[in-house]
Amino acid sequence: MTDAQAQIGDFLSRQMAQFGDDTIAAGMRYATQGGKRLRGFLALESAALFDVPRDRALYAAGAVECLHAYSLVHDDLPCMDDDDLRRGQPTVHVKWDEATAVLVGDALQTFAFELLSCEDAGTAEEGLALVASLAKASGAQGMVLGQAQDIAAETAGRPLTLDEITDLQANKTGRLIEWPAQAGAILGGADPAPLRAYAKAIGLAFQIADDILDVEGDAATAGKALRKDADAGKATFVSLLGLPAAKSRAANLLAEATEALQPYGDRAQTLRDLAHYIVHRDK
Amino acid sequence: MTDAQAQIGDFLSRQMAQFGDDTIAAGMRYATQGGKRLRGFLALESAALFDVPRDRALYAAGAVECLHAYSLVHDDLPCMDDDDLRRGQPTVHVKWDEATAVLVGDALQTFAFELLSCEDAGTAEEGLALVASLAKASGAQGMVLGQAQDIAAETAGRPLTLDEITDLQANKTGRLIEWPAQAGAILGGADPAPLRAYAKAIGLAFQIADDILDVEGDAATAGKALRKDADAGKATFVSLLGLPAAKSRAANLLAEATEALQPYGDRAQTLRDLAHYIVHRDK
Repeated sequence: MTDAQAQIGDFLSRQMAQFGDDTIAAGMRYATQGGKRLRGFLALESAALFDVPRDRALYAAGAVECLHAYSLVHDDLPCMDDDDLRRGQPTVHVKWDEATAVLVGDALQTFAFELLSCEDAGTAEEGLALVASLAKASGAQGMVLGQAQDIAAETAGRPLTLDEITDLQANKTGRLIEWPAQAGAILGGADPAPLRAYAKAIGLAFQIADDILDVEGDAATAGKALRKDADAGKATFVSLLGLPAAKSRAANLLAEATEALQPYGDRAQTLRDLAHYIVHRDK
Repeated sequence: MTDAQAQIGDFLSRQMAQFGDDTIAAGMRYATQGGKRLRGFLALESAALFDVPRDRALYAAGAVECLHAYSLVHDDLPCMDDDDLRRGQPTVHVKWDEATAVLVGDALQTFAFELLSCEDAGTAEEGLALVASLAKASGAQGMVLGQAQDIAAETAGRPLTLDEITDLQANKTGRLIEWPAQAGAILGGADPAPLRAYAKAIGLAFQIADDILDVEGDAATAGKALRKDADAGKATFVSLLGLPAAKSRAANLLAEATEALQPYGDRAQTLRDLAHYIVHRDK
């Protein structure tokens, strides 16, 4: 995963070298530095299952990291989650200002689609399938819907039910974890169903682990503020299920994810390890 | 143009019918209603020059209108231009709130790329060429750069020079006028150079006309606040050139635009009329 992180970072640096030294370009570089690069790693690993050349898969990996970074920059805005700290660093609107953060997020979203439309990203059919699926995963019926559901929950006057929070998280976080898992199958001309099942399980596990981390984690290690949800009286998997049941749910999802990878045998060991990491991470 | 406005409106309504009744979907419909649909009209007319079926060209027209609407929703935010009124109606952040406006703009951008990746939008090659060119026109080296240049100008401590404002406007407004003009050529498999020259001329003329309108126009007819630039002491083509020279510059650009359409003969009459409308419009 460390190798993949470096490769994706190098790839994005190279691709952004075409930009100038203006504030937007600086903000885009800043917002895509660091982080776990979980989604990009997933794109690289799912592509590797089907022997897609890494140079090609890096476009999908870079695109999903830019898409994710845009969502964080906008999500951190004062009118959204109002976060000052991200990955242990000042957020974009703190380091620059709100207008810059809006524009940097906008440009990062655009850049994600620009990367997928590069001729080295795949054939025209593959590139367009990647664009179409990323748009569906991240737009008004995917990630953005999930963010809106999250905001609506805060003013609903009652905590969300387990079904509601599961649906919200599937949109807000899950869809952008499913996308890179399927991107490898799109590039490899393979059936995406097993990887979709795997990604659905780890997407939900990822959020449950996040809620556990919010309660049990260490802010310095995590690089972000914790106990926010509990302090805000927000429904989470932990508040709804209790800590032991939340942990057991995450463990079951880990088993489901592992099971879904069965068709790929030993080749999918890294994806199994990734599922394990997601459930047991400390940041 | 009224026919085209209705067709583009119907097309967007049909395409957005897949969305639910949540706030984001409502905001997206709201933000794409009304307006001149100049950019969409340009896509339809440039496509018509090359006998591209209208059903196909509507995807490019709808996409550029969504992209334009996203830029307006974000540009109207309090941290950007802070506008309460757009097309005679409350802006999205006034009607809903800032978080909704950020997300509605985000989802409209995504939807623009989703439309271009629909299989009815063209062949895979054409669709991907449209995605790539729209991303370049609207991202960190296009429209978003222009918006950032516009914001930077306000804190520069001196008015912009004519060269600087020409560059700024070419990015902020021009690129998204050039794109639909070229989109018709992409879909028609034709040389985009004459349409690019036409669009460059009308893009600049559009902005000069906007600056003239800001000084001479009627707010009720225009459906937006006027005299903002003059009151803010902002450099415009009118403040830099004076009103008579600005009008003469717009007239020269109109002649240039007309000249660029020469290869298409009588078929380009509507595009000639459009150039005339852009220079002489009252809203």
